[in-house]
Amino acid sequence: MIRALTILGVMLATALPVFAQSNKELVTSFKLENGMQVIVVEDHRAPVLQHMIWYRNGSADEPHGVSGVAHLLEHLMFKATDNMESGELSATVAANGGRDNAFTSYDYTAYFQRVAADRLELMMRMESDRMVNLRLTPENIQTERDVVLEERNSRVENNPRALFGEQMNAIQYYNHTYGRPVIGWRREVEELSLENVLAFYRTYYAPNNATLVVSGDVDPEQVRALAEQYYGVIPANPDLRERARPQEPPQTAARRMTFKDARVAQPYINRSYLAPERNTGDQEQAAALYLLAEILGGGTTSYLAEQLQFENQTAVYTGAFYSGQSLDPTTFDMVIVPAEGVTLEQAETAMDDAVAGFIKAGVDPEQLDRIKMQLRASQIYARDNVDGIANRYGRALSTGLTIKDVQDWPDILQAVTGEQIIAAARDVLIPETSVTGWMMRQEEVSQ
Amino acid sequence: MIRALTILGVMLATALPVFAQSNKELVTSFKLENGMQVIVVEDHRAPVLQHMIWYRNGSADEPHGVSGVAHLLEHLMFKATDNMESGELSATVAANGGRDNAFTSYDYTAYFQRVAADRLELMMRMESDRMVNLRLTPENIQTERDVVLEERNSRVENNPRALFGEQMNAIQYYNHTYGRPVIGWRREVEELSLENVLAFYRTYYAPNNATLVVSGDVDPEQVRALAEQYYGVIPANPDLRERARPQEPPQTAARRMTFKDARVAQPYINRSYLAPERNTGDQEQAAALYLLAEILGGGTTSYLAEQLQFENQTAVYTGAFYSGQSLDPTTFDMVIVPAEGVTLEQAETAMDDAVAGFIKAGVDPEQLDRIKMQLRASQIYARDNVDGIANRYGRALSTGLTIKDVQDWPDILQAVTGEQIIAAARDVLIPETSVTGWMMRQEEVSQ
Repeated sequence: MIRALTILGVMLATALPVFAQSNKELVTSFKLENGMQVIVVEDHRAPVLQHMIWYRNGSADEPHGVSGVAHLLEHLMFKATDNMESGELSATVAANGGRDNAFTSYDYTAYFQRVAADRLELMMRMESDRMVNLRLTPENIQTERDVVLEERNSRVENNPRALFGEQMNAIQYYNHTYGRPVIGWRREVEELSLENVLAFYRTYYAPNNATLVVSGDVDPEQVRALAEQYYGVIPANPDLRERARPQEPPQTAARRMTFKDARVAQPYINRSYLAPERNTGDQEQAAALYLLAEILGGGTTSYLAEQLQFENQTAVYTGAFYSGQSLDPTTFDMVIVPAEGVTLEQAETAMDDAVAGFIKAGVDPEQLDRIKMQLRASQIYARDNVDGIANRYGRALSTGLTIKDVQDWPDILQAVTGEQIIAAARDVLIPETSVTGWMMRQEEVSQ
Repeated sequence: MIRALTILGVMLATALPVFAQSNKELVTSFKLENGMQVIVVEDHRAPVLQHMIWYRNGSADEPHGVSGVAHLLEHLMFKATDNMESGELSATVAANGGRDNAFTSYDYTAYFQRVAADRLELMMRMESDRMVNLRLTPENIQTERDVVLEERNSRVENNPRALFGEQMNAIQYYNHTYGRPVIGWRREVEELSLENVLAFYRTYYAPNNATLVVSGDVDPEQVRALAEQYYGVIPANPDLRERARPQEPPQTAARRMTFKDARVAQPYINRSYLAPERNTGDQEQAAALYLLAEILGGGTTSYLAEQLQFENQTAVYTGAFYSGQSLDPTTFDMVIVPAEGVTLEQAETAMDDAVAGFIKAGVDPEQLDRIKMQLRASQIYARDNVDGIANRYGRALSTGLTIKDVQDWPDILQAVTGEQIIAAARDVLIPETSVTGWMMRQEEVSQ
């Protein structure tokens, strides 16, 4: 999913604001001369705004051996700059009645503030400042590395589900950087240096690697003027390369793993399959997979729930998951938590039989219609959520999609047929690219 | 020119003596001023010599995403230099009645010539020339990339055992570069560029990253004088960094995989465990693992063979393998090929039961003595093999060991006790770090 920026595309994008309307979302998009993309989503119902900056780099862009540097840098972005004290940005946001935070994922790192609509300039002044003026010390690294290690302790080391997930992921990907945890492998996090962090910062924290998304009670022309004033003066990084991660070789071996931990209260099975992602101008198969996940395991009325939780009470929980929003191939996941007295082996067989039965029977047209209607409704409700809108565009633009892709998506979902869903299931739910994980209670310590 | 470690290869390799006694080897070692290490092993019984250069870089030193570059460069080292035509080196060796070749592994790349003892200077002149004067063209890359892809076709794509092994390896290592094939992932080999190759060449092909091993009918002082004349004038690479590959996070999940292929004539099971390697000054556990492999699966008198091939005829072949010669943690492997009518599941259970029985029963002192005696004998025979001696020192020096480590090894092996072998088995043969691969015949094509 590599977007070739044609000369024409660049000229159009920089010369003309594109007023693209998706249902009732009023979206304006333009590019600054230094390559920074700006998206404005107007919503004038309340005098608030969300100011977000999305960097098109995440943990999957880290060099091998320095996992966790993207996330550590996210923490360090709240330290001192040439113009701000450490912590000053967040304190200022809070003093102005707002809230701010940041998050790191495989494909992006994002920073946001939610504040009153008249504070936009202040946000831009501070956010543009830390894009280039961060002043890190070795002490900063040491302190924040300890914070991250503690975060890893509480979120991963003390959480068997997270440890299980990390290793499933490492087995799912033979070569792609999605096989490494976003927070980083502990021993690599322990070794992260100021040099590692600065190299990452200097490469990726540049306007031509960023998308600014401002949503809420804002005027696009005012956003443009301020963006030019604050972000437009920052030079592009001429050395920024096209995003290209190591890709997967053909996967032709069904994999399994068992994970035993004394802290596991409830054993369960997770099955993941390598699955195609949403690609620009080519979202149809992803849409079919999205609906497949909904139909198979999207709630208590889903196929797996009906078959395994209600019909024969094999499971106390079933689920299927697919988001498709990633730059490179992602996974389609299923989970089954067996009922009391049902073994993991029985549960897995029941799940596989249910999926095979589903593929054989085909999609129930009434269920498909019901799910499509629910999707429409949730998409309409989602428009009420200013944060959610900004996230939706920011995430899409950071994973190789365009505004048009975001706006086409609801209609593409509605157009998916039952046959396409079954075809997607046949294509993707194949043993050769799968990992089956058994999360087990450690009943006794061996030896 | 690659030594792909397929299961079959391992099976065949066990027939050969591997380690040689070194007490009576006449070894001289010195360093040139530019950091190049030189080892001379004298053997004056025949007027021949082996001239080898070992670069301390292999596929595990490749940047992520450019797998195969070490091996491609090995091929390209036979192209033109400032002073030689493409192919001239090998043609000259052949015209002088010798033979030459090269090989790439995870931790090293080595080039050797075996010639009459009076041709040493000629070998050094040519080998030192290509250390720095290689003149590659884009056409060279294109041509040799095709050669390597064809090599990959014949050795890997057309060989289910090799494909199976590649994916087992990728599952064994979550993070370390040992998880990638030495020959490279096909799609990455296809993309290797002149720039990739030159970057690797300029980093690693330097005297301070090389060990010269000359064995045979040579005089150490003459070797020194010639080495200074030819290699000593090449400047060290001041930017060469310490070797540090991404290391493994804790592995706590037993993994399994099934690989089905219509071309599989004989299904089998491969079990691998992450295992410590030989480390300088600290080879005792590796020695215990080495003997464990010999006792468990080192031939028809081994424990697994007796239990599973003769006592109850569950298997037609069993084997256990451990070399321990790698820079970073390696694997301990077991193989079982079930007899006709025995399922893979039954065979695996039988193998696990046999190993558990072995650990419980302890080592038979008579068997241990017999194996130690055989090792002594094979070490003595190995001294007759001039190539083997040079390989033994070159490989050791390229995987973090010293001459002393090589020379201590036979005595360390002899000192291992049955208790140490059982302790090593308990430490290393644990499910949490294991991969179990089922190689299966594809009976039918699904769907």
